Amino acid sequence: MAICFHFQSPLKPITFHPSTTKGVPIFRCKASLPTITTTTEPEPLFTSVKSFAPATVANLGPGFDFLGAAVDGLGDFVSLSIDSSVRPGHVSISEISGSSKLSSNPLFNCAGIAAIATMKMLNIRSFGLSLKLEKGLPLGSGLGSSAASAAAAAVAVNELFGAKLGVDQLVLAGLESEAKVSGYHADNIAPAVMGGFVLIKSYEPLELKPLIFPKSQELFFILVSPEFEAPTKKMRAALPAEVGMPHHVWNCSQAGALVASVLEGDVVGLGKALSSDKIVEPKRAPLIPGMEGVKKAAIKAGAFGCTISGAGPTAVAVIDDEEKGKEIGQRMVEAFLEVGNLRSVAMVKRLDRIGARLIDSVPR
Amino acid sequence: MAICFHFQSPLKPITFHPSTTKGVPIFRCKASLPTITTTTEPEPLFTSVKSFAPATVANLGPGFDFLGAAVDGLGDFVSLSIDSSVRPGHVSISEISGSSKLSSNPLFNCAGIAAIATMKMLNIRSFGLSLKLEKGLPLGSGLGSSAASAAAAAVAVNELFGAKLGVDQLVLAGLESEAKVSGYHADNIAPAVMGGFVLIKSYEPLELKPLIFPKSQELFFILVSPEFEAPTKKMRAALPAEVGMPHHVWNCSQAGALVASVLEGDVVGLGKALSSDKIVEPKRAPLIPGMEGVKKAAIKAGAFGCTISGAGPTAVAVIDDEEKGKEIGQRMVEAFLEVGNLRSVAMVKRLDRIGARLIDSVPR
Repeated sequence: MAICFHFQSPLKPITFHPSTTKGVPIFRCKASLPTITTTTEPEPLFTSVKSFAPATVANLGPGFDFLGAAVDGLGDFVSLSIDSSVRPGHVSISEISGSSKLSSNPLFNCAGIAAIATMKMLNIRSFGLSLKLEKGLPLGSGLGSSAASAAAAAVAVNELFGAKLGVDQLVLAGLESEAKVSGYHADNIAPAVMGGFVLIKSYEPLELKPLIFPKSQELFFILVSPEFEAPTKKMRAALPAEVGMPHHVWNCSQAGALVASVLEGDVVGLGKALSSDKIVEPKRAPLIPGMEGVKKAAIKAGAFGCTISGAGPTAVAVIDDEEKGKEIGQRMVEAFLEVGNLRSVAMVKRLDRIGARLIDSVPR
Repeated sequence: MAICFHFQSPLKPITFHPSTTKGVPIFRCKASLPTITTTTEPEPLFTSVKSFAPATVANLGPGFDFLGAAVDGLGDFVSLSIDSSVRPGHVSISEISGSSKLSSNPLFNCAGIAAIATMKMLNIRSFGLSLKLEKGLPLGSGLGSSAASAAAAAVAVNELFGAKLGVDQLVLAGLESEAKVSGYHADNIAPAVMGGFVLIKSYEPLELKPLIFPKSQELFFILVSPEFEAPTKKMRAALPAEVGMPHHVWNCSQAGALVASVLEGDVVGLGKALSSDKIVEPKRAPLIPGMEGVKKAAIKAGAFGCTISGAGPTAVAVIDDEEKGKEIGQRMVEAFLEVGNLRSVAMVKRLDRIGARLIDSVPR
């Protein structure tokens, strides 16, 4: 599938200011703006940088394939440095920690693909880069592991060369990676780059709508990951090709309610909408042992809603109180064991409102 | 289909204060609250009342069957008086103006059915009522004609007896009428009663979510009604029974974008989302001569978006400026004639933010 890069006539670059602190306004980006590539090669501002990109929860029930949210304090790190031993215009992956399954060939590694795509956008021809990836996320957990790597890499390259690209372009660079790894879907990569909730309005051209959850409200995701593999391809194959009109109308209305709940900071409404999917979750949940029991346990324990995170197998529930979230997580872990005979781990994490960011840098 | 009245144990009634002036906060109602009927028969506060209920635009493109909005300055009037010549507990329709096609048998008239349903909810046994209906809306135009009559009647009865019922119950009374006339759909009756945009979250129980369009923003509907009959049944029959997954995801995402645009007061985004339906409009538009050309003409003239209002044949476009709206309306009228060989009339109307209300009363 073609990547919709729009290398149009050069315009004034959209500067992407790194968000290194909390409280930075969430970006309002329209990726339908002409995507810009620099005509002249930018100079690096740093000899090395380190970036972080958060985990993401995609789908969110009726938000299937167009809505995702970023999760605070959980994600991947990319360290990137100018390396004269690397062929100019190329990336070399020097180290991967936190996972033994990933290729160090940058053409087959999420971080590598996104780094190369970002370098191409920036027109980097004179510098070779060395990349170190620290996986803070398990692979195939339904928490946007590939998107976190890609987002961290795209941001690292962009920051190293003076942040010439806007978030829309960083999402496009990440999408190139996602397309090769898990499909052309932006519902992980967009919130991984931008933070918060992001609605994917369209792909051709790419249009992204940040949905700003009010700062005055607290939102916690309870993420319970079982020891179980739920390959995205298998979970995609479980989807129905056609949807009956009543279910279509139902899910559309719940998607609308979900969006309204996010914008209004209504965690109860958000949970209820999250739980209401009649199309995707009913097909996928039976493929994850214990998932239906876990959802029931979460709701019984006080969660406002629960569904499958991404394509699974992680279960995601929502609540507005961290302590209560821990209790609910415990009940969900018990249910995975009792009903699904699966061991699992629970985490309670805030909504990440920032997205991928620079966390360290060494000036030239 | 059963009406989901929930006559549970009596609780403190939700008082529905009439909104007779602009600027009244829009009601936040949860129809999932227990529906309340009075145990004792209330005394009438007035000898007669007059009410108004606005026209409504349902569907709004990807909001098919769950989203509607009320239109200012266009609607139906109901005058209601205590009449000792009418059998206690009953309604007699004494006059219908503005239409020659409606039955004066209250059991077959939208206003009559809603009035009787409201009287039952209020437990009215000792008073007979005489009802006069003034149709300000053409029938079968896709502007919620039946809902306007029902909403006006329900509000009139409620106000006459001291406004004991909440908006949720008035919507349920109106739904009884809608179910008999055009189907069990609340996307006209809910905004007709409540004003503004209303999202129908569920029917069992009925849950309504008002979507508050910011007061600081202007929104105009350009309504162009051709001389053409588009029976709701025929338009329903045109709908596909099944929806392909890609179109389902697309329409869901646009529904989400539509809801976000309403809440953010983004008329451009609202128009774009309104125009984006890939499921219903493509099936129905060809049944209304010229509709596709009218949509193109509206967009070309500067409208932010255009679709079919309700089940048609009225075309609805949106804009943020009244004068511009009139120009667009003229282009749409021309297109209906040129492309569809249909004469039509254009109106430019503001969003109604109030809904059905008392406009006159004579105290006892």
